[in-house]
Amino acid sequence: MPALIEYNEASPEVRAVYDDIMTTRKVDAVNNFWKALARNPDVLRRTWESIKTIMPPGKLDALTKELIYLAVSATNECPYCLASHSASARNKGMTDEIFGEFIAVVGLANQNNALAAAYQVPIDDQFKL
Amino acid sequence: MPALIEYNEASPEVRAVYDDIMTTRKVDAVNNFWKALARNPDVLRRTWESIKTIMPPGKLDALTKELIYLAVSATNECPYCLASHSASARNKGMTDEIFGEFIAVVGLANQNNALAAAYQVPIDDQFKL
Amino acid sequence: MPALIEYNEASPEVRAVYDDIMTTRKVDAVNNFWKALARNPDVLRRTWESIKTIMPPGKLDALTKELIYLAVSATNECPYCLASHSASARNKGMTDEIFGEFIAVVGLANQNNALAAAYQVPIDDQFKL
Amino acid sequence: MPALIEYNEASPEVRAVYDDIMTTRKVDAVNNFWKALARNPDVLRRTWESIKTIMPPGKLDALTKELIYLAVSATNECPYCLASHSASARNKGMTDEIFGEFIAVVGLANQNNALAAAYQVPIDDQFKL
Amino acid sequence: MPALIEYNEASPEVRAVYDDIMTTRKVDAVNNFWKALARNPDVLRRTWESIKTIMPPGKLDALTKELIYLAVSATNECPYCLASHSASARNKGMTDEIFGEFIAVVGLANQNNALAAAYQVPIDDQFKL
Amino acid sequence: MPALIEYNEASPEVRAVYDDIMTTRKVDAVNNFWKALARNPDVLRRTWESIKTIMPPGKLDALTKELIYLAVSATNECPYCLASHSASARNKGMTDEIFGEFIAVVGLANQNNALAAAYQVPIDDQFKL
Repeated sequence: MPALIEYNEASPEVRAVYDDIMTTRKVDAVNNFWKALARNPDVLRRTWESIKTIMPPGKLDALTKELIYLAVSATNECPYCLASHSASARNKGMTDEIFGEFIAVVGLANQNNALAAAYQVPIDDQFKL
Repeated sequence: MPALIEYNEASPEVRAVYDDIMTTRKVDAVNNFWKALARNPDVLRRTWESIKTIMPPGKLDALTKELIYLAVSATNECPYCLASHSASARNKGMTDEIFGEFIAVVGLANQNNALAAAYQVPIDDQFKL
Repeated sequence: MPALIEYNEASPEVRAVYDDIMTTRKVDAVNNFWKALARNPDVLRRTWESIKTIMPPGKLDALTKELIYLAVSATNECPYCLASHSASARNKGMTDEIFGEFIAVVGLANQNNALAAAYQVPIDDQFKL
Repeated sequence: MPALIEYNEASPEVRAVYDDIMTTRKVDAVNNFWKALARNPDVLRRTWESIKTIMPPGKLDALTKELIYLAVSATNECPYCLASHSASARNKGMTDEIFGEFIAVVGLANQNNALAAAYQVPIDDQFKL
Repeated sequence: MPALIEYNEASPEVRAVYDDIMTTRKVDAVNNFWKALARNPDVLRRTWESIKTIMPPGKLDALTKELIYLAVSATNECPYCLASHSASARNKGMTDEIFGEFIAVVGLANQNNALAAAYQVPIDDQFKL
Repeated sequence: MPALIEYNEASPEVRAVYDDIMTTRKVDAVNNFWKALARNPDVLRRTWESIKTIMPPGKLDALTKELIYLAVSATNECPYCLASHSASARNKGMTDEIFGEFIAVVGLANQNNALAAAYQVPIDDQFKL
């Protein structure tokens, strides 16, 4: 089986997901992420359903959700996720100025996480649930 | 030297930072994080200056910045950071509904980061810088 | 010193490890991982001895061990490890269907790890050692 | 809202999930993980549906799935996940001997992931997809 | 089997490792880490042999090795490792001033790792192996 | 805006940082890391000021600081950071022998971090702050 499943070689089950992605996102092709997941149609379908449910705007707008997604991806050092979701974030309004503020917070949090661990800081009583 | 430096045993240099934290945040005590960092006054001062510069609202509002911070901390599994910045986020308007949307994105991104890696997904040409 | 040490330029100490790898695995060349570690013969030898001791089937069969190895590598986002051990896993019987179940668990665990941290879930008494 | 939602204070929507968990698992109470997620009924329901779909035996047996879950959790350093899923794994047949083989692979993989990164090992042609 | 194996309930094989640890380190008890690993005598023995081989001074002195160990542990957010190896580092000469310089580098590196990922920085030609 | 900002297209504010990097390091060009950060002049300037303050020798010599930086980067699996700081470390005296001892400690710590988590080792009283 090839590493990436193109539309014209996909099973009906996979094509149905591809079609829904393209219709929902108003695009005429799916990204490599989906073509890779298509090797496992169940994983493909469930992953798409999760994204389709979770990422649209709600109490949080679409760009804020993309920034949260990018913050996780930068922390996990995931090159594919950063490349694809940086593009999504720009499509949803991320400017260079917003990226500059975003990355400053991401860098700070990664720094301070390590500091809190290394200093073995005990949780303050007022922060305990 | 004790693990946590209280105000009344702090050096003038440390007290100056504590005072600035309390004045800036309009609180009458500093958290354990600062009391631990105070063992190294230079680290304390630089860390506070970074937070003071980075976390106030700019193009991104204060709550969005806290959510980005929390997304990093959840990914790094940092208990202290999650406890203290969850409190900060609530102070800046995070409701249970917002938290529910936030955590759904954080969980999804952590899941998909692992998927992208394990499927060895190549970056699409259109996402390359 | 080059980044990768080929057999014909390797020291006798390194060649002895290469020979043992090829004999044990019934292959006629070693992977880049070993050629890179060969810059430090002690590291090369100890790493090979660990793998040779740990990875063969015992109470757990060889494929299960590869899946555990891959689960760690997907979580750490290690491209080399995922590429080489995916090949090992396929050699030991991993089908696309098995990979589909494997990756679903890996994605779920990475998601739930972040949730457990962010919700600051206290450990239930019955789970304490 | 409390940090943990007990059954007798839960909404009908949350109780329905709790009931399904208890019925499916043949237990008479739910763990703290579920009581914490219940602050966000949508997150609770979706997370439970994922676990209910993914964790039962298929091509991989239930214990193998728990070991994969534990491998992720050890790598992410998630205390809650390790405590609760160690108990699950023992319920599904994990002996001390199996744990010993499991942890040896997890330790080895975490070690070798760091080695592969630090040596900047290029992926062998035969491992490329 | 208990979570921690005390000396007086340990098997001869485990006692031999405990004895070697105590003799080598000139202490009269072993830490909880060893008492936990003792549930798997093979894991206990191999882990001790690795530490005994790797951690003594060589080209790098004993304190530098402890700092490298701590840098990994802070990045992985491992509370036990940070608690026990901070004590080791202090025993080997780590002062508060050294810790201050150490933690500044650890924080900086964790910050910059996230920045390099998020900016998707391509590797400079002169840095390629 | 391009992904990398070259000197001749940089703003005066960015050029001033580039000039300071080149003067301080006695080199005639800046790395891609800086050219990427230059998309956000504030991030560029603050990051450079942090490195300029933190990385020079103090109680810890310059090579030890680079090794600590590399230990974090290997644990985070950051390819760019490993490539660029391996070069820095070699410039500051890292030999193959030193790298061999370094990587042995990094691998051991990553292994033992996972073990300490999976065995759920409680912190010994004498290690508590």
